[in-house]
Amino acid sequence: LLLNPNTTAALTDRMAGVARTVASPGTTIETATAPRGFPYISSRAEAQVAGAVALEMMAERRDRCDAVVMAAFGDPGLWGLRELLDVPVVGMAEAAMLTACLIGRRFALLTFAAALEPWYRDLVEANGLSARCAGVSCAQGRFSTIDAVQDEMARQLVDAAHDCVRELRPDVIVLAGAPLSGLAPLIRDEVPVPLVDGIAAAVRQAETLASLRPAKARAGAFARPAPKESSGLDPALAAWIAGR
Amino acid sequence: LLLNPNTTAALTDRMAGVARTVASPGTTIETATAPRGFPYISSRAEAQVAGAVALEMMAERRDRCDAVVMAAFGDPGLWGLRELLDVPVVGMAEAAMLTACLIGRRFALLTFAAALEPWYRDLVEANGLSARCAGVSCAQGRFSTIDAVQDEMARQLVDAAHDCVRELRPDVIVLAGAPLSGLAPLIRDEVPVPLVDGIAAAVRQAETLASLRPAKARAGAFARPAPKESSGLDPALAAWIAGR
Amino acid sequence: LLLNPNTTAALTDRMAGVARTVASPGTTIETATAPRGFPYISSRAEAQVAGAVALEMMAERRDRCDAVVMAAFGDPGLWGLRELLDVPVVGMAEAAMLTACLIGRRFALLTFAAALEPWYRDLVEANGLSARCAGVSCAQGRFSTIDAVQDEMARQLVDAAHDCVRELRPDVIVLAGAPLSGLAPLIRDEVPVPLVDGIAAAVRQAETLASLRPAKARAGAFARPAPKESSGLDPALAAWIAGR
Amino acid sequence: LLLNPNTTAALTDRMAGVARTVASPGTTIETATAPRGFPYISSRAEAQVAGAVALEMMAERRDRCDAVVMAAFGDPGLWGLRELLDVPVVGMAEAAMLTACLIGRRFALLTFAAALEPWYRDLVEANGLSARCAGVSCAQGRFSTIDAVQDEMARQLVDAAHDCVRELRPDVIVLAGAPLSGLAPLIRDEVPVPLVDGIAAAVRQAETLASLRPAKARAGAFARPAPKESSGLDPALAAWIAGR
Amino acid sequence: LLLNPNTTAALTDRMAGVARTVASPGTTIETATAPRGFPYISSRAEAQVAGAVALEMMAERRDRCDAVVMAAFGDPGLWGLRELLDVPVVGMAEAAMLTACLIGRRFALLTFAAALEPWYRDLVEANGLSARCAGVSCAQGRFSTIDAVQDEMARQLVDAAHDCVRELRPDVIVLAGAPLSGLAPLIRDEVPVPLVDGIAAAVRQAETLASLRPAKARAGAFARPAPKESSGLDPALAAWIAGR
Amino acid sequence: LLLNPNTTAALTDRMAGVARTVASPGTTIETATAPRGFPYISSRAEAQVAGAVALEMMAERRDRCDAVVMAAFGDPGLWGLRELLDVPVVGMAEAAMLTACLIGRRFALLTFAAALEPWYRDLVEANGLSARCAGVSCAQGRFSTIDAVQDEMARQLVDAAHDCVRELRPDVIVLAGAPLSGLAPLIRDEVPVPLVDGIAAAVRQAETLASLRPAKARAGAFARPAPKESSGLDPALAAWIAGR
Repeated sequence: LLLNPNTTAALTDRMAGVARTVASPGTTIETATAPRGFPYISSRAEAQVAGAVALEMMAERRDRCDAVVMAAFGDPGLWGLRELLDVPVVGMAEAAMLTACLIGRRFALLTFAAALEPWYRDLVEANGLSARCAGVSCAQGRFSTIDAVQDEMARQLVDAAHDCVRELRPDVIVLAGAPLSGLAPLIRDEVPVPLVDGIAAAVRQAETLASLRPAKARAGAFARPAPKESSGLDPALAAWIAGR
Repeated sequence: LLLNPNTTAALTDRMAGVARTVASPGTTIETATAPRGFPYISSRAEAQVAGAVALEMMAERRDRCDAVVMAAFGDPGLWGLRELLDVPVVGMAEAAMLTACLIGRRFALLTFAAALEPWYRDLVEANGLSARCAGVSCAQGRFSTIDAVQDEMARQLVDAAHDCVRELRPDVIVLAGAPLSGLAPLIRDEVPVPLVDGIAAAVRQAETLASLRPAKARAGAFARPAPKESSGLDPALAAWIAGR
Repeated sequence: LLLNPNTTAALTDRMAGVARTVASPGTTIETATAPRGFPYISSRAEAQVAGAVALEMMAERRDRCDAVVMAAFGDPGLWGLRELLDVPVVGMAEAAMLTACLIGRRFALLTFAAALEPWYRDLVEANGLSARCAGVSCAQGRFSTIDAVQDEMARQLVDAAHDCVRELRPDVIVLAGAPLSGLAPLIRDEVPVPLVDGIAAAVRQAETLASLRPAKARAGAFARPAPKESSGLDPALAAWIAGR
Repeated sequence: LLLNPNTTAALTDRMAGVARTVASPGTTIETATAPRGFPYISSRAEAQVAGAVALEMMAERRDRCDAVVMAAFGDPGLWGLRELLDVPVVGMAEAAMLTACLIGRRFALLTFAAALEPWYRDLVEANGLSARCAGVSCAQGRFSTIDAVQDEMARQLVDAAHDCVRELRPDVIVLAGAPLSGLAPLIRDEVPVPLVDGIAAAVRQAETLASLRPAKARAGAFARPAPKESSGLDPALAAWIAGR
Repeated sequence: LLLNPNTTAALTDRMAGVARTVASPGTTIETATAPRGFPYISSRAEAQVAGAVALEMMAERRDRCDAVVMAAFGDPGLWGLRELLDVPVVGMAEAAMLTACLIGRRFALLTFAAALEPWYRDLVEANGLSARCAGVSCAQGRFSTIDAVQDEMARQLVDAAHDCVRELRPDVIVLAGAPLSGLAPLIRDEVPVPLVDGIAAAVRQAETLASLRPAKARAGAFARPAPKESSGLDPALAAWIAGR
Repeated sequence: LLLNPNTTAALTDRMAGVARTVASPGTTIETATAPRGFPYISSRAEAQVAGAVALEMMAERRDRCDAVVMAAFGDPGLWGLRELLDVPVVGMAEAAMLTACLIGRRFALLTFAAALEPWYRDLVEANGLSARCAGVSCAQGRFSTIDAVQDEMARQLVDAAHDCVRELRPDVIVLAGAPLSGLAPLIRDEVPVPLVDGIAAAVRQAETLASLRPAKARAGAFARPAPKESSGLDPALAAWIAGR
C-alpha cells in the first residue's frame, strides 16, 4: 500500500508509476490518496495534521496489505503507524536515506523549495543520521503546480546537484520530496554522484521487510500500545486504537 | 494559555493549579482542555492525533493570549504551533529539560509508566539534548486513574528517584509527565538532587519569552509558512493555515 | 545579584539597566563590579583570573540575594559558584543559549571581536549544545571603548546578522557579549530572525529558578564540596570554602 | 554473488541457503568461498588479510554478477570493493544494521563470542550509526566448530536476547555473525523484539540496489581510483587495480 | 617545568620522582609548588582559584623552561597558560587521555574519590574525547592524607580496576589524579588492561612538543591575546598579560 | 621500526631522515619498505592490500624492535598490528592527530591530492576525533613523482594552508601524507598556525609508549586473539597468527 497523505491524486499516480517500475514480480501496488488535508505538505503544522489523517486512512485499510509505504518525504505519522501496524511500514525519507547509506559514506538531500530545508535537516537528525549526512541543498526556481515541479525545474535541479557536490562533497544525493519521484533515472548521467529516488527506495525496502518477516515488536519503541478509548475521533481510527 | 491536548479536565485543573502557584504577579492563566482525543496521551500515534487537535484548539483561540504552554510532556504539535503562532509557545518537556540544564550538567527524566521510556528517550534526542541527559528512569507501580498517579505512586517515585541517582548519576531529575505536576515540592527533601516540574518550568519560560518579546521569525525553521488552502479540515484551523 | 566580573562600572550600569527593564515586579536588581581584574575579559587567561575574582566577590555577598547572574558572556567561574551557592546562579551565556533553544531549533552566536570566536565556540561545546548551534559569527569593525561597542558598531552588527542568517541558517541569533546588552530591541525589526539578549535572558532565568526553588544538590556535579582549608587566599573566600 | 571471505565452505552453503530463501524470483545466487585465509575471521588482523583476499576473489569474477554481498559480519574489504566495482556491493553488517533502522529506533547486536564485541562496537561507529545502536551483547557458551554455533548455542542465544532486551532496551536485535545465518526465523517467537538476519538483509539490499541502478560514483568516497600499477600482487587483482 | 597548583610539596616530590624516571636523557625536571591555595584541588571552585594561582606561578618563571607540565588532573588554567606561553604546555589529564588513545580504542578514567567523578566526566567532554571514553570509575575507600592515597588504597584501586574492566569494557585505564602518580608500574601485572600514568604521559608529551617545536599560534584559540592592562592583580601576572 | 607499506624506498629514506632528526638520543631507527604492493597508497582498496602486506612485513621482524611506526597516513593495518604485537605500534595519522590535540582545540588536515579527502575524513571519524577536527583541506597542483610532492608543491601547500586557516579556522594543521614528511619546519614561519609532521609525531609517540611500557592488553579491543590456523597465507604471517 502506497499511502499518500497529500490530497493531490496526480502525485499519487506519479509515485505509483515509479513504484510499479521498481517493484519485484508478484508485488501489487495499491494506493490511497488523502481524502482531506493539503495538496502538498510543506510545513510541520501541515505534517502534524496530515500524519493524523494518515492514521485514519490506515485504520480503514489495516488488513489489506503486506507492507505500507508512507509516500511523503517528511514521513508524517510514520512512527505512530509503526506502533499500530502488524505489517511493516516504511517512510519515503527514511528509506531514501538508509538506502543512500549503502551507496556512499555521506549523503546530501536535494530539494526544490527553500522552506523545506530546515524541516529536512531536522528529519536527518530525527533519524539519527547526522553522521552520515553532508547537508541539505535546494534548487532555485519556480513551479506552477506541485505536480509540475520536476518538469519545470529539471535544469535547476541538475545545476543544484552540481553545486551540492562541489560545496558539500556528498557521495550520493537523495532527491528529497514526493514531486521529484521518477526524476533520478532521467538525470543520472548528468550528475557526478549516484542519485536515490525516495519512492523507489521505499517500495524496495517495504518489499524487503515483507520478505524478512520480522516479528511485530512486543517490547520497545514500536510495541503495540495498550488499547485505549477515545472520544470524538474518526470512528475507524478510534476502533483501531481501542483494539477493536 | 495552558493548552492541555488530553481530554481529562481534572489534569487541566491540576496543572492550572501549579501554574498559578509559580506565575508572576500580573500573569493570568487561561486553560483549554482537548474537546476530543484521549484521556492521556501515551504513544506516538496518540500524540500525532492530539497534536493535530491542539492545532485546532489553538486556531480558535489564536488572538487571545500572550504566550502558550503545550501542557503534555511529549510536546505534541509544538513545532507546528511555533510556525503558526506570532506569540511564543513553550513545550512542557522542552521547558523542563532546558530549565534542568540551568541546574545541573546532566539531567534524568523520571516517569511513571514503562511504555513512555522509549518515547521520552526520543524526545531528548529530538531536542538535541542527548549530551546533557543521563538517561530515562521509570517508577514501578500501578495507578487507578491518570489523575491519581502522583497520589498512588508517590512512594514508588521517591524510590525510583533514589535508584535513578545511584545508577544514572544525574545532577537533576525532571519529573516527566503531566500527571506528576505539582509533585516536586512535596518530595524535594527526600531526593538528593533537585527536581524540575514540567508545568512550573513551562509557565515561567513562557513568561520569560513573553517578556523578552523576540520578534516572530521571518526565516528559518519557524517562519510562518506561506498560506495554504486545504480541504476537509476543521474550519478554524483551515482558515488559520490559509492565512484568513 | 548581577555580578560583573569585569572592572568597568559603565558596563555594570548598562547591564543593570537592561535587567531592570525585564525584571518581574517585585524583583530588585543588586549589582557588583569586580574590584580588581580587567576592564573587559576576552581571553581564557583573563577568564581564569576573573572567575576567581568572582568567587571572592560572591564570598562577601553570599547571604544577600535570592539568585545570582554571572554577567559576562564566557560565564567565568560559573560552575564553581554553582557548587558553593545554595541559591541559584545563572550564567549570561548559558541562559542566552538555552533561551534561544525555546525559540528556534538552531541558534547562532553573533559577537563583535574575532578573538572571541574560538572561545565562544568552546562555550557552546562546554554547554553540550553543539547539536543546537549553527555556528559563531562576528561583526567587522572597530570601537573606541568597550562600553561604546554597540553604539559604534550597530550598523556592522546588523549587517553581520544578515550575513549570519544567509550563511549559517540559524533560527535565532544570540547577541554574544556583555557590551551588546540592550541592543536586541533596537535592531529587532532589521533582522529576519529573533534575537536574544544575554542579560535579559539571564535575569529572567534567574527569576525562574528562584521561583521554582529547586533544592540544593546533595549529589552530583554541583553538590557542595566538603569544607576545605586553604592558605594565602582572600579571607572571605577561604572562609566560605572552609565552610565557616 | 555471495562472497564468503572465510575458507569454510559449509558456512558458504549455509548462507547460500538463507540467501535463496529470501531472494526474489529471478535472482540467482552465485557463491564464492575464500581459497586461502581463515576458517572464520574473528579479529582485525584476520579481517585485514581476508579483505585483501576478497579483493582478489572479486578480481577474478568482476564481470559476472549484478550485485555483490560481502558475506562476513565485519564487512572486510567492503569499502575497497565499493571503490573498484561498477555494480553495487553490500556488506552483511551494514545491511543488517540499516535494515534494523527501518524496524526500530535503536538496534542491538547480539553475537556468540566475547572477542567479537569490541570489533563489532567499532563497526557500529564506522558505519556512523552509534545514535541508533543500544549496544552489543554476547551469548555465553561454547561450540565445537564454527558451523555448529547456532545449533549448539540456540538456547544461550535466546537467553542472551532476553538479557539484551532487559538491559539495553533495543527495539530490534541484529543476529551478528555469519554462523548465525538462518537462525532468526527459528527463534523469532521466543524473543520479544524483531530479529534481523544479516545475510537475508544483505541479499535483499543487494537486490534493491541492483534494481534502483544508481550510477557509479564519479566523485566522492567511492569514485573509481585512478588506475595504478603495483608489484608482486595477485595478477588478477593487479590488473583490476591497474585498470586493465 | 612541572607546575603543581596544589600546595602539598610532598605531592610535587612524588610527581617529580615519576617525571625523572620517564624523562629522556638530557631533560631536566624543574618543579614549582603553589605558594597559596589548597592542599589538593577537588572541585571546580578550587580549580578556578588554583588555575589563577598557576598563571601567577608561571608569570614569575616564564622564560625559564622549554615546556610546562600542568601537574594536576583537572588541568586547571591550562588553556590560559597555552594562550600566554610561547613554549608548549601539557596538561596531565589531556596527556593521559590522548596517550591512552594510542593504546586502546576506548579508555576509562579510574579515580579514588567519588566527588571527582562528575568533574572528570566533564573533563572528557571538554577535551572532545567522549567518543573514546568508556566511562569514569571510582575506587571505594578512605585515606588519611592526600599523599598517602596510593599506599593506603592500592588494593581497592586494583579491585576497582577489575570492576571497571568488567562493567565499562575499556581497552586501557587512566589512573586519574596526581596522588596516583607512580602507581601504574606497581600494579600493572594485576590489571588485565594497560594503565596510563598522568605525570609520566605528560612529561613525555611535553618532551615531544619541545622536540617538534611547533610555532606559536598566531591565529585560532591559542594565539597570544592582545596585551591588556589590569588592576589589582599579582604584579608579575599583570605585567605578563600586559605584554611587559 | 619505521614500517613503510608503500614500495617506494625513496619515501622510506625521506621519512627515516625526519625520524632520525626528532628521535631521542639512544633511539635507533630501523626501516622496512614493502616488498610488494603500490608505490603510494591512495585508496581504500590499496590500503586493504597494503595493510595485509604490512602484517607480513611485521611477521618477519616481530622480535626485533621496541616499538613500531606505521609510516603511511591512512594507518593501513594498524589495528591488526596492535592486536598481534606485544610492543607498542603507532600510526602516523593517529599520532599526528592526537599530537595536534595537545597544541590546539581543533586541527585541520591538509593534503596534496583531492582523492585523499574523503578517505582522510573517514580517518578522523574512525579515530573518534570529529569533535576536534575543523575539516580536511587540499592543495591544488601537480607533481611528477610521489617523492617530489613537497618540492614541487611547497608554494601551493603554503597557499592552501592560508585558505584552510581562513575557511576552517583550525588552531593547528596536520600535514597529511607521507610525502609531506619533513616539510613542516621549512614552512612553519609562513603559516599562522602551528604545523604537525606525521612522522615526527609518530616517532616521538612511539618512544613515549616504549618508555611508559604499558602492559600488553589481556582484555578489550587489542588483546591478542586466540591462535588460529590458516591456509595459503604467507608462512611467516601464518605462523605468527597461529601463535608459533
